[in-house]
Amino acid sequence: MLKRKDKYVIAIVGATGTVGREMMEILQERKFPVSDLILLASDHSAGERIEFSGRNWTVRQLVKDSFSGVDMAFFAAGDEQSLKFIPLAVKSGAVAIDSSRVFHADKMVPLVVPDVNPRAIGSHRGIIANPGSVAIALGTALKPLHDKVGLERVVATTFQSVSESGKAGQEELAHQTVALLNFQDVETKAFLHQIAFNCIPRIGNLLEDGYTDEEAALESELRKVLEADAVRVAVTMVRVPVFRCAAVSVNIETRTKLEINEARSVLAAAPGIVVFDDPARSLYPLQMDTAGKDDVYVGRIREDRSVANGLSFWIVYDNIRKGSALNSVQIAEELIRQ
Amino acid sequence: MLKRKDKYVIAIVGATGTVGREMMEILQERKFPVSDLILLASDHSAGERIEFSGRNWTVRQLVKDSFSGVDMAFFAAGDEQSLKFIPLAVKSGAVAIDSSRVFHADKMVPLVVPDVNPRAIGSHRGIIANPGSVAIALGTALKPLHDKVGLERVVATTFQSVSESGKAGQEELAHQTVALLNFQDVETKAFLHQIAFNCIPRIGNLLEDGYTDEEAALESELRKVLEADAVRVAVTMVRVPVFRCAAVSVNIETRTKLEINEARSVLAAAPGIVVFDDPARSLYPLQMDTAGKDDVYVGRIREDRSVANGLSFWIVYDNIRKGSALNSVQIAEELIRQ
Repeated sequence: MLKRKDKYVIAIVGATGTVGREMMEILQERKFPVSDLILLASDHSAGERIEFSGRNWTVRQLVKDSFSGVDMAFFAAGDEQSLKFIPLAVKSGAVAIDSSRVFHADKMVPLVVPDVNPRAIGSHRGIIANPGSVAIALGTALKPLHDKVGLERVVATTFQSVSESGKAGQEELAHQTVALLNFQDVETKAFLHQIAFNCIPRIGNLLEDGYTDEEAALESELRKVLEADAVRVAVTMVRVPVFRCAAVSVNIETRTKLEINEARSVLAAAPGIVVFDDPARSLYPLQMDTAGKDDVYVGRIREDRSVANGLSFWIVYDNIRKGSALNSVQIAEELIRQ
Repeated sequence: MLKRKDKYVIAIVGATGTVGREMMEILQERKFPVSDLILLASDHSAGERIEFSGRNWTVRQLVKDSFSGVDMAFFAAGDEQSLKFIPLAVKSGAVAIDSSRVFHADKMVPLVVPDVNPRAIGSHRGIIANPGSVAIALGTALKPLHDKVGLERVVATTFQSVSESGKAGQEELAHQTVALLNFQDVETKAFLHQIAFNCIPRIGNLLEDGYTDEEAALESELRKVLEADAVRVAVTMVRVPVFRCAAVSVNIETRTKLEINEARSVLAAAPGIVVFDDPARSLYPLQMDTAGKDDVYVGRIREDRSVANGLSFWIVYDNIRKGSALNSVQIAEELIRQ
């Protein structure tokens, strides 16, 4: 349990990665009460210096004893590091806020989107997990609709950017793009196939039934976050040649009918959502406009007339910020508040 | 009506465009019986020379009298030219095969995908229309499933390439990509928004109800082509930064249940379809692999468990070839056969 203090000792595991750096920016922007900052990374990044609140902080190597005296530890370094070091952090008395998926199946670990299910935090026993980025964004957008008219089914297709594979993903898109424009062969490392000028209909590992593990996870994550066990979900996840931000094309079916204008006002009144939807003026959310934004942007809201109570819309969010780093910091804020 | 001959006088309106050039390639590949070729284009392209069957042909300016002696005229120059010149071509005795959408509402004009509804050709009165590219590809993929288990509802989200806006679209993607990689501002002309490293959730003109005219058209086109008036369709069309080929993420609901393996064999046995679906070996259709291909590629076939009789899959096709030029030539072939 977190002890009440004026300021907290914060550790960031994966401090030199895309999400870790974004966390630092967000902690500064939101004036998070930090008394000391422990930046942790793998061996080869140790020694790097990173600015935070006008001071340079040295990145240290992640080791067993890294968490002594730490109040809250953000984990953004991948499955392996979370699995190995979170138990040690918790033993040291820290609350771990994890961005990996290794504790998602653990019923003792709440899966939290503070704008959606903040009360779930109360049940934690040292570990709180971020859902995957798609579940964070979809959960945020669907929550007010579910509360209003009852969600029955969600069909979603994603347009996910390369930044979910961190710097390596972004560099791969840039390198392949330059190579192709110069009529050279492309190298693939971060992704299984060429991503420049191509879409890859597969995110995660493929399972026996044809779904990927990420697609399968979304269904249970959404149900947990929305606290809606009966919601049925069908998702197709696609990687697109975009550097940052993800989009999702969504069709939902609800228990009772929601008129478009009502849907717009219900969404606009909910936390973490911006309705950006004026077709007549060619306004709808675009990935290029959404980098660095905190909210989930919703547009192209329209009736899905192919079913009794259907609604269709398009959401865009910054997968690094809203889909990951911001959610972790919001969990920490909610933890302090509670 | 087409008179039976050994070889035909063919006119191509829009001969210098992306689709027009593809038609010429396809006519040669398929050894289409051409006795004379009349290449037509706007004023500023007239005089260009294009090779066909080992001979150079001069592009002529499209005028009122261009169709004298023509047996079949392919129109691939846009709405305005089709509207103005197709009646003249028909008056001259030619059968017009149109790629624009201006005659789609005309009940006297059959909308034909030869692999799907070849008999509809019989009813023509001088004009036969190509459906839009998405309807051609989706119609091809859905036809065998509809015949087998009865299609009730289709939810689709598209990933459409810039080549649908012809050379201008492809040049815009290339120019914007280079500009962005050099930290320069981008210019937008062919599309309403930046397309490089961005997805645009709007294809066509936006209507009052929030759909675009292209999205709205797909529903009626699919119903016509599948000869299935009761099929319900919900589509979201998205432009992606890919040079050529389109992909569609599809969820369908059918009257009776179709097991995955059965779906695979039904699809594989149908004309115009290649099942390319081996998740274990990371095989699924990709836009980068599909340029220049004649078939609709179907992969990631899986059960959609969020509904009673649900199926989900991913299709990829060459929008210039299968989605347009090839379909026109196949209509002409079918016309000769009948």
